[in-house]
Amino acid sequence: MSEEKEITIYDIARHLNISPTTVSRGLKDHPTINIKTRKKIAEAAKQLGYRSNTFASSLRSKRTQTLGVIVPRLNSSFMSSVLAGMENAASREGYNLIIAQSLEQADKEMENVMTMFNKRVDGLLVSLAHSSDVRHFDVFFSKKIPVIFFDRVAPHPDSTSIIIDNFTAAYQVTRHLIMQGHKRIMHLGGNMLLNVYSERLRGYKQALQDHKLHFDEKLVITGNLTEECGTDVAKQLLKLKPKDRPEAVCCANDTSAVYCMIALKNAGVNIPEDIAFAGFNNDPISRVIEPNLTTVNYPGYNMGQAAVTSLANHLNGDTNITDTNTIVLRSELIIRASSGKRK
Amino acid sequence: MSEEKEITIYDIARHLNISPTTVSRGLKDHPTINIKTRKKIAEAAKQLGYRSNTFASSLRSKRTQTLGVIVPRLNSSFMSSVLAGMENAASREGYNLIIAQSLEQADKEMENVMTMFNKRVDGLLVSLAHSSDVRHFDVFFSKKIPVIFFDRVAPHPDSTSIIIDNFTAAYQVTRHLIMQGHKRIMHLGGNMLLNVYSERLRGYKQALQDHKLHFDEKLVITGNLTEECGTDVAKQLLKLKPKDRPEAVCCANDTSAVYCMIALKNAGVNIPEDIAFAGFNNDPISRVIEPNLTTVNYPGYNMGQAAVTSLANHLNGDTNITDTNTIVLRSELIIRASSGKRK
Repeated sequence: MSEEKEITIYDIARHLNISPTTVSRGLKDHPTINIKTRKKIAEAAKQLGYRSNTFASSLRSKRTQTLGVIVPRLNSSFMSSVLAGMENAASREGYNLIIAQSLEQADKEMENVMTMFNKRVDGLLVSLAHSSDVRHFDVFFSKKIPVIFFDRVAPHPDSTSIIIDNFTAAYQVTRHLIMQGHKRIMHLGGNMLLNVYSERLRGYKQALQDHKLHFDEKLVITGNLTEECGTDVAKQLLKLKPKDRPEAVCCANDTSAVYCMIALKNAGVNIPEDIAFAGFNNDPISRVIEPNLTTVNYPGYNMGQAAVTSLANHLNGDTNITDTNTIVLRSELIIRASSGKRK
Repeated sequence: MSEEKEITIYDIARHLNISPTTVSRGLKDHPTINIKTRKKIAEAAKQLGYRSNTFASSLRSKRTQTLGVIVPRLNSSFMSSVLAGMENAASREGYNLIIAQSLEQADKEMENVMTMFNKRVDGLLVSLAHSSDVRHFDVFFSKKIPVIFFDRVAPHPDSTSIIIDNFTAAYQVTRHLIMQGHKRIMHLGGNMLLNVYSERLRGYKQALQDHKLHFDEKLVITGNLTEECGTDVAKQLLKLKPKDRPEAVCCANDTSAVYCMIALKNAGVNIPEDIAFAGFNNDPISRVIEPNLTTVNYPGYNMGQAAVTSLANHLNGDTNITDTNTIVLRSELIIRASSGKRK
């Protein structure tokens, strides 16, 4: 067999001494071709190394059976669960996934969008670098190519957003800390241009208000929620006299919470007796830190599955994503030892 | 603008009142078209929503600028780093990545291979479900479509493997434990059909032999290296009298090491004084467990970058992967408190 020449249905036809039309029909499991012949054709196709002509059939159907995925970063525990869920659903629905990361940069995200557009994906699944401006998706919207935002979303009349209820989740965490007897509660939040972080701040504030606790702006710190960010916040807390420190810290992710706890523990602070902690995401580290971290279980795998399934249903014509505004997945407060009562 | 109709160079030509040939050349930045006209064409193309005809140009060039990635599981800390490195290199080299997971199943991997083949990827990057049989990649090899194996690899004359030196890494871990004064060292390993685990076992054995320590088969346990596996091994160790327990456990990943440590600690065993521990991978949990886990830094991000760069160089004709047998990346023993001296 030549390595260069592409095998066509004509080669299969010649090989089996039957007509190309029969081969073409046989490969599509056409009922007019008898089963024995269909099997013979399939075997010859495999043996000769025939590839179905995806390009040509894409040109006819205008479908590539490919979905584009654009995320801020691929290497996070949450995003790897999302991707695993997406791949599972895509494989079941007969789609392939093309992936790209924006590295949290708007201009890289614009490039990704144009690449996916030129690649003619059938639909797009996006977790945004920034929520403030989504005009660079207009090339998709104007062609009615469906776009689904997940986790980091922006409202758009032609798109569905798949999220958890960040407001309620943060409200529940804060209320839990209040119920444990903590009054001066700090919130360590992320980039407030992103819905996920602004909603968590809003939930925190509302819980304070509903429990008649004073909202103190000085108790809200924002940062990039990395290990370094958590360690830096610990340094700031250690500069304060113990009596001036907050009684609890409610963090918008687990990484910053865990590294803040580690730095405080190294300085002799007891958790939760001196300062209680809560995180967000239920990352693997939250079950390894001592004491184990109270957190919110964020269903990344389910979110990935739901996003692909919604997109596939829309493409199949079963549903229309422009009719659906938002799909809210269930999240869950997981209470562990880090948020224990005051001594 | 119609949402259904595809914009062609003829529409751009009509819009600008110039010839289709000029538009076609302008879009390709042909030097015979003056810069001002090229700019005008690019702007009109963007405004009208023109998509370069990837299918047609793929049919001409026989290239899709797409690479296929098949991995056992997407949701692991190591694999998410690999993927981030791959995306970074692919984006730089002008390739898109299509991803699929085999879920560690040979038959799912075969399906993935055929999907990628029919999708006409320019090359394949694979971490194997099982190393024993790679005949299902013959459709690629016989067409000289390049395949690169990474991490979980199998020898093949037409392919390059990208790995770390698992033998030496495990040898160094074991030697370090011996130097700390540990003599009865257990090895908790993975599926020995996979090169990564069989090589680590070999390194462990060689280190014992070189230091005149007796190899005891009963001190080698294999499992799936999950959290449950680590916890189960701890239960087995706790059934033994303290004096019959190994002095150190050398685990083939961090997850099993960490969960074995947690269960032992909960039962009052002191680490490293009663039993020392070492893991493999340098996952985030290894720096959160107390005491911090001695481990091997596994350069996932670099491995992903190296795999895509090798494939791109081969496709560009700069190098030939069939000339290269193996690329070995540097790994590193990271010594932390879990492997401390005997009391």
